[in-house]
Amino acid sequence: MEGKGIDGKLDKSEQSCEEISHLSIDIGGTLIKIVYFSTNSKCSTSDEVPALSKERQEVPNGDLNHHILSGRLYFVKFETSKIEDCIKFLSSKKLQQCVITGAQCHHSHAVDKIKIKATGGGAFKFANLFKEKLGITLDKVEEMESLVTGANFLLKAVSHEAYTYIGGQKEYVQIDQKDLYPYLLVNIGSGVSMIKVDGDGKFQRVSGTSVGGGTFLGLGKLLTKCQSFDELLELSHQGNNRVIDMLVGDIYGGLDYSKIGLASTAIASSFGKAISENKELEDYKPEDIARSLLRMISNNIGQIAYLNALRFGLKRIFLGGFFIRDHAYTMDTISVAVDFWSKGEAKAMFLRHEGFLGALGAFMNYKDGNADFMAPQLVEQQPPKSSSCIVDRIHNSTRVHENENGAIDCRLRVSSSFKIYDEVKRL
Amino acid sequence: MEGKGIDGKLDKSEQSCEEISHLSIDIGGTLIKIVYFSTNSKCSTSDEVPALSKERQEVPNGDLNHHILSGRLYFVKFETSKIEDCIKFLSSKKLQQCVITGAQCHHSHAVDKIKIKATGGGAFKFANLFKEKLGITLDKVEEMESLVTGANFLLKAVSHEAYTYIGGQKEYVQIDQKDLYPYLLVNIGSGVSMIKVDGDGKFQRVSGTSVGGGTFLGLGKLLTKCQSFDELLELSHQGNNRVIDMLVGDIYGGLDYSKIGLASTAIASSFGKAISENKELEDYKPEDIARSLLRMISNNIGQIAYLNALRFGLKRIFLGGFFIRDHAYTMDTISVAVDFWSKGEAKAMFLRHEGFLGALGAFMNYKDGNADFMAPQLVEQQPPKSSSCIVDRIHNSTRVHENENGAIDCRLRVSSSFKIYDEVKRL
Repeated sequence: MEGKGIDGKLDKSEQSCEEISHLSIDIGGTLIKIVYFSTNSKCSTSDEVPALSKERQEVPNGDLNHHILSGRLYFVKFETSKIEDCIKFLSSKKLQQCVITGAQCHHSHAVDKIKIKATGGGAFKFANLFKEKLGITLDKVEEMESLVTGANFLLKAVSHEAYTYIGGQKEYVQIDQKDLYPYLLVNIGSGVSMIKVDGDGKFQRVSGTSVGGGTFLGLGKLLTKCQSFDELLELSHQGNNRVIDMLVGDIYGGLDYSKIGLASTAIASSFGKAISENKELEDYKPEDIARSLLRMISNNIGQIAYLNALRFGLKRIFLGGFFIRDHAYTMDTISVAVDFWSKGEAKAMFLRHEGFLGALGAFMNYKDGNADFMAPQLVEQQPPKSSSCIVDRIHNSTRVHENENGAIDCRLRVSSSFKIYDEVKRL
Repeated sequence: MEGKGIDGKLDKSEQSCEEISHLSIDIGGTLIKIVYFSTNSKCSTSDEVPALSKERQEVPNGDLNHHILSGRLYFVKFETSKIEDCIKFLSSKKLQQCVITGAQCHHSHAVDKIKIKATGGGAFKFANLFKEKLGITLDKVEEMESLVTGANFLLKAVSHEAYTYIGGQKEYVQIDQKDLYPYLLVNIGSGVSMIKVDGDGKFQRVSGTSVGGGTFLGLGKLLTKCQSFDELLELSHQGNNRVIDMLVGDIYGGLDYSKIGLASTAIASSFGKAISENKELEDYKPEDIARSLLRMISNNIGQIAYLNALRFGLKRIFLGGFFIRDHAYTMDTISVAVDFWSKGEAKAMFLRHEGFLGALGAFMNYKDGNADFMAPQLVEQQPPKSSSCIVDRIHNSTRVHENENGAIDCRLRVSSSFKIYDEVKRL
C-alpha cells in the first residue's frame, strides 16, 4: 500500500515509483475525483500488501490480443478550487511523463490525441486547462451514466461494498447480483442526483435536490467559519442540534404530538429556535450549528430519496457521493429518515467507495479497441456473470474492507495495441 | 374597517368600541393567530365599509332557538415569543371583560368553565398561562383537523380565496365545490405539514418537513442579523441568489446540462459557491443570502409537496401557513418547482387567508349546543351545499378581495342559550 492519502497529498519518495496505466477523472463542483490503475504496488515501505504481479499473463480464454496486468485501482481526490494541485499531481505521474513526452512513447499518436476519460461538469469547464497545461484531451463521459456504471461495478464486483447503518451498527450487505435491480442511486455531491437504475446502462435521473454537500459546507462555512468539510463534520459530532432546532416538544410544551406520530424530540423546524431567542450568531456554539445543519440536510435527502423510491416501488436506496464520508451521525440521520418515512419498507445503504462512482464509471468507459490511448477491461477470475467488468479480488473480502484508502486489487485485461508507460519503458 | 393591522397593534381609540362574540386561537411555534367575530364595524373612521346590522334577525328557516348576528371575522397575529402582547390584546377586548368579570355576566358558569377554542402546540404549552392571566380555559382542537376545517371553509365559502401565481401573474381560481376533493394541503408554518384532504373531516397527514418558515427566519437571522420575517423577505426581494448558489453553469463551464433537462441557470447546489470562495459571511450582501435562503426553502417545499401529490394522484396543491405572505418570489419559486417536477401536471395554489387556517378551523369547531360559552354557526344565504359552515358574503367578491386585512363579512347563527357580552350589556 502506498503512503498516499486519499486527499492526493504525496510524499516525494513515492512520486518516482508509480506506474499508472489507466486514469479517469470526475470533476465536480466541489471535488475532483481520480481513479487510476497502477501495476506498481511494491514501492511502499509497508509490507502489509503482498506483491502483485506486474507481468503479463495470458488471458484464460486464450485471447492472444490481450494481456493481463495485475495491480490496483487507487482513489484520490482534490478540491476543484485547487485544481492546480490536481494538475501537479498528474504532472508528477508517469502517465503524465508519457503524455507530455509523447514523442518518446511507442505509439504514433500525436500529443493532441492523448485522451483520458473524464466526467462531471468540470470535464467541460476545464477541458481547455487540461489541454494547455498537460496536453491531455478530456474524453467526456456523461455524468449520470458514469455514476450508474460505477455503482453497478462496485455493487457487483466488490463484496463488503454496501452496508447499512442502523442503531450505530454498520452491517455489510451481500448483494445478490440477480436481484440487484431496480434500485435508487442517490449521489450526494455538491448537489444531489437521484437515479432509478434498472440495469447496466439502463437508468433514468428521476429527481435531485440542490440541498446537498455544497449546502452543508457553504452554509457551514458562513455560519461557523470552518474551512473544510471534515472540520465541519468533526464539529457537528460534538454538537447538540436541540439548542437551535425547534422540536415538537418546544411547541407542545414538552409533549409528543402522538396523533400524527411525532415524538416531542422530533424536529418541527430546523433552526427554528433561532427565531425567538435574542441571540446572535456569535452566541451559538459552532458545534451546535454544524449539528443542526447536518441533520437538516441529511434528513431532507433521506426524505426526498424515500419519496422517489416509493414512486417507483424501489426497496433499496444506495447512497454515493462525498457527503457521507463514513460519518456516523450523517448515516444515522439518513437511515432513520428513510426508515421513518417508509415505515421500515425501504433501506438506505451506503457505499464504501461512495465518492468515486463517477470516476469509476468513466474508468469503465475505456472500451476495447475504440480509444486512442487506452483500451483495458477489468477481468474477473470467475466466469463473467452479467457484467463484463468484474473486479478480480486477490485478497479475501475482509482484506478489501480493511484497506484504509479503499484501493482495490484487481487485474486488467489490456488490448495489445494499447500503449502504456510500463510498456514503453521496457522497449 | 378598523384601524387595527393584522399584526395586532392597536390604537387606544379602538379598544373601547369592539364587541367580540366569538374568538379562536392558534398558537404555533412562531406565531399566534387569532380569528374573532365582531358585530361592531361602525367604530372605524373609515367609511369604506357599510354598516352591518348588530340586531338579531330571525333565521330564515324559522328556527326560533337561534339568532342571526351580522358582523365580521377578523384576523390578528402575534409572535409567540411575545405572548404577553397577545394576553394584553385579549385583556383589552370586551370578550375578555366578560371573561374576567365573569360574575357580571348573565350566565351562571364559573369563571373556570369559560373556554375558547384553541389549536396548535401552544394550546398545550400555554394552557396554564391563559388560565392564570385571563381565567380562560383553552378548549383544544386537534391541529391537523383545524387546518383542514379552515381550508375547506375558505375554499368553499370565499370566492377569490385561492389563486395561482404564474409568470408574475396572480389569477384567482374558481373552485367547483363538487370537484374540490381530494387535494393536498401544505401548511407552511415554522415547520411544514402536508395533508391529503378527502372531504370534511376526512384527511391524513401524509408528510411534512422541518425545513419551513422557522428555518427561513432562524437561519436568516443568524446569517443577516435581520430581526423580522418581513424584513428578511424585503431583503430577499433585492438580492441575487446566483452570487452564492452554485449553478449548473458554474460546474459545466456555462453550459446547460441539457441531457437531464437542467439549464445552466438551475441551482445545482444551494449556497454551494460559498465553498470555494475565500469569502466570509461579512463579504456577502445580506440581500443575496436572503434570496438564496428563500429560494432553497421554497424550492424544497415545492418539490416535497409535488412528490406527495404524485403519490396520491392529487392535481391540486393548496398552500397555507404564514410563510408565503403574498411574496412574489416565494410564490414564483414554489409554483415553478411544482410545475418543473410535475411537468405541468400539478398546480400550486395559494390562499389569501393562508396563515389563519388553523385558527379558522378551531373557530368552526364551536358546535351548536355543546359549548359552555359559545355556540355559533356560520350561516349562508344560499341553501347549504355540502358544508354547514358557509360564509354569508354581504359584499361582492371583489370587495372581499380588496379588503386589506382580510376581514370577512359574514353572519353567525347563534344559539339562544349562548351568552355574549353584547347580550349581557343590554340586560
